[in-house]
Amino acid sequence: MLSPAPVVPVILAGGSGTRLWPVSRDSLPKQFQALIGDHTLYQDTLRRVSDRTLFAPPIVLTHEDFRFFARRQASDLGMDVTVALEPTRRDSGPALLAAAMIAQRLAGESCLVLALAADHIVLDEQLFVDACRTAAIAASDGRIVTFGITPTEPSTAYGYIRPGSETGQADARVVDAFVEKPDQKTATGYLADGYLWNSGNFLFPAGLLIEEAERFEPEIVASVREAVELAVEDLGFIRLDARAFASSPAKSIDYAVMERTSRAAVVEGRFRWSDIGSWDALRGVSESDASGNVTHGPVTLLDSHNTFVHSDGPLVAAVGLDDVSVVATEDAVLVMPAHRSQDVKALVAKLKSDGHNAASEHLKAHRPWGTYQTICRGERFHVKKIVVEPGGRLSLQKHYHRAEHWVVVKGTAEVTLDGKVFEVRENESTYLPLGGVHRLANPGKIPLELIEVQTGSYLGEDDIVRIEDVYNRS
Amino acid sequence: MLSPAPVVPVILAGGSGTRLWPVSRDSLPKQFQALIGDHTLYQDTLRRVSDRTLFAPPIVLTHEDFRFFARRQASDLGMDVTVALEPTRRDSGPALLAAAMIAQRLAGESCLVLALAADHIVLDEQLFVDACRTAAIAASDGRIVTFGITPTEPSTAYGYIRPGSETGQADARVVDAFVEKPDQKTATGYLADGYLWNSGNFLFPAGLLIEEAERFEPEIVASVREAVELAVEDLGFIRLDARAFASSPAKSIDYAVMERTSRAAVVEGRFRWSDIGSWDALRGVSESDASGNVTHGPVTLLDSHNTFVHSDGPLVAAVGLDDVSVVATEDAVLVMPAHRSQDVKALVAKLKSDGHNAASEHLKAHRPWGTYQTICRGERFHVKKIVVEPGGRLSLQKHYHRAEHWVVVKGTAEVTLDGKVFEVRENESTYLPLGGVHRLANPGKIPLELIEVQTGSYLGEDDIVRIEDVYNRS
Repeated sequence: MLSPAPVVPVILAGGSGTRLWPVSRDSLPKQFQALIGDHTLYQDTLRRVSDRTLFAPPIVLTHEDFRFFARRQASDLGMDVTVALEPTRRDSGPALLAAAMIAQRLAGESCLVLALAADHIVLDEQLFVDACRTAAIAASDGRIVTFGITPTEPSTAYGYIRPGSETGQADARVVDAFVEKPDQKTATGYLADGYLWNSGNFLFPAGLLIEEAERFEPEIVASVREAVELAVEDLGFIRLDARAFASSPAKSIDYAVMERTSRAAVVEGRFRWSDIGSWDALRGVSESDASGNVTHGPVTLLDSHNTFVHSDGPLVAAVGLDDVSVVATEDAVLVMPAHRSQDVKALVAKLKSDGHNAASEHLKAHRPWGTYQTICRGERFHVKKIVVEPGGRLSLQKHYHRAEHWVVVKGTAEVTLDGKVFEVRENESTYLPLGGVHRLANPGKIPLELIEVQTGSYLGEDDIVRIEDVYNRS
Repeated sequence: MLSPAPVVPVILAGGSGTRLWPVSRDSLPKQFQALIGDHTLYQDTLRRVSDRTLFAPPIVLTHEDFRFFARRQASDLGMDVTVALEPTRRDSGPALLAAAMIAQRLAGESCLVLALAADHIVLDEQLFVDACRTAAIAASDGRIVTFGITPTEPSTAYGYIRPGSETGQADARVVDAFVEKPDQKTATGYLADGYLWNSGNFLFPAGLLIEEAERFEPEIVASVREAVELAVEDLGFIRLDARAFASSPAKSIDYAVMERTSRAAVVEGRFRWSDIGSWDALRGVSESDASGNVTHGPVTLLDSHNTFVHSDGPLVAAVGLDDVSVVATEDAVLVMPAHRSQDVKALVAKLKSDGHNAASEHLKAHRPWGTYQTICRGERFHVKKIVVEPGGRLSLQKHYHRAEHWVVVKGTAEVTLDGKVFEVRENESTYLPLGGVHRLANPGKIPLELIEVQTGSYLGEDDIVRIEDVYNRS
């Protein structure tokens, strides 16, 4: 059965998780990473709502820093998404209200909104869609629906929902109470009493959420409304007004609306789900071998049990481990007992205060035009691999302290140097002398890959004078 | 007091330890690595015998594959060494006999030989030299002296020596028995009874060792004598005759001589010593912090105790560990409970059988002329950093399937291309087309560093046709 009004998926993709460090870092958080399978969590979320008989094209709400990931990872799936940018993080209340207002503009006043976190894992797609259909009917009948997940274990990592009487609408029930993360014993009791995990995903009529918020939090609604009204379009992104949005109180949607409204209902999701708030949670939804080991990447284990090893590159070899987690990337390694995975956040805080770059930055840096990665560094030289996406154009720029050699290893480069424009093809090279005004672009249909060798006495990223930039960066 | 005859240090540097993987690998074993401090274990061994009032210039016995390390690491200390090459590994008996014969040729028939493993750690240099002086006096009186180490704990990782009555010579005592590695309880008894660790280092008159070996193992002596007589000099290396050496039975010096001769004596070494036969042994001789943690490289620990972390590059962060060892290199990570460090050998065997390159090869490859390291690799390209030592010359060569771009980032290159010779200086580049006959050399006084970008359809190391090579490689 089709829902009576369009369901607009709103993907909340602005989070910056450090609890899955070293894979997830501030510069590229977990929603944009492939932790299970070939797609990123964000892409899996988009794919989950790709049935256009039920779902309208999605709106993505994210942070300025992640806008090009959000667009590129969607377009890699062949999907067009509307990307709206939160100028500052004001928690989920203002974010969802902004999303509701944008959805109304795009899909009509009476649209329904399905608000999904971009960094959750759902293992049973069909059960998820079933739950959305049920929730859409209840929402159409005037409910703000939250998804409660059938618990598979007495987890202490999630908040719970106590479902109450039937609402009379579809399979939706009244929310008796939202309860905080419990201890182990309490959690076991919750399971016996039929409580559900609080997934933090919602389905509601856009207008109803705004209306209810207006009653409890008029200040938030006023600020957000102004931020949406004053929003500007920039390179296709919807940029909420920074001043107005910042003037909104920061409050979660639970505190702002859900715990106060009489219109809340819960629909039970029978799909396997995780918010992968820790490495241990990822282990919980991963396939293990006969010894209980979960591995990803090049891993060799000897006499080890219940061990979790995730490698994005280096060979990890272990002997005699039990209940230990190891996560290895090209530049950082994490080791801990599996049950200590909640402490990663504190560990990363320490790494940051100790000044380790790898606490927040990845080796590969992402830019609107593509990526670059340092592959070798010396006292007076610096070697990078640069990838420019088709159509990508770096800024017109010059450097005061370095010269650059470019060797094209794939695709074709269009190089501008001191007013001249020429092509450099695969297996060709060019030289950009110190002070030369230059630009690199990819006029082709496949990614351009080149090796850049910088030489000079100062090689910091800040030695760049941008003369012109198609991405409006200063 | 000077010893009555020259003491010729013989450094046995042919071992290929996998027990300290991933730092130590077949391609560059632990003796040529800096595990503690700035020098490699081999260099520390050379420095230990640098007092020329007591020790003659050393002879190094090593394997073909390691000959350039042995020479370069000595010359980095400003030391000239004689490097003799074992064509095959025949255990310590034939090796020490060959060393004794070579020492006699270089330092006279009556010389004394101090045979030292290149991969041991000695923490009290002066006590070591004192023990050598004592042993030299006993050796001059007709003893084959083995160094017994004052135990600091009832180790089960070492064999033991039971010292007997005094020999009447200096502080040397008769060897009552050599005993195998004991269990914990037996070891505790050994300590109470005054047993010493068997270090496997010796000091003896060259002629006496040969004479005693001739009585017990005439076949070994005959083979080794022939191998030394037929030895040839090759680029300054003494190359033992392969056929003759291979015909010798493989036997350790303990079995071949020490356990059978009546001339064995033991001198007690009161210096702190380790054969670092495992990561745990290295931990045992390293400084720990207040929580018992030993760290090397970029390491951040939270709430961890008795943990050993050795990183040669990546940031290692850990929380909640107790008695765990972590060793990280650029391309491989090892994790295990500290007491499982004897199992690394089996783990590496598994890695080899699983076909992991990192089981035996380092990312950086060493050649007679210097080093190269892959820094980036793609389907049709391969980027290396190449370092050519002053005076180094690569072979005159060509490739069938690849072209090469060279960008010099330090020093000056002398490039030969199709008969023309020209210089390429810092911040200059050159292009070597597919099929071009070329050679790279460093005519300067500082190491030459360059970035090589290879492009082509096949980029294997075996696509090389060597036309001429100053290092006599085929």
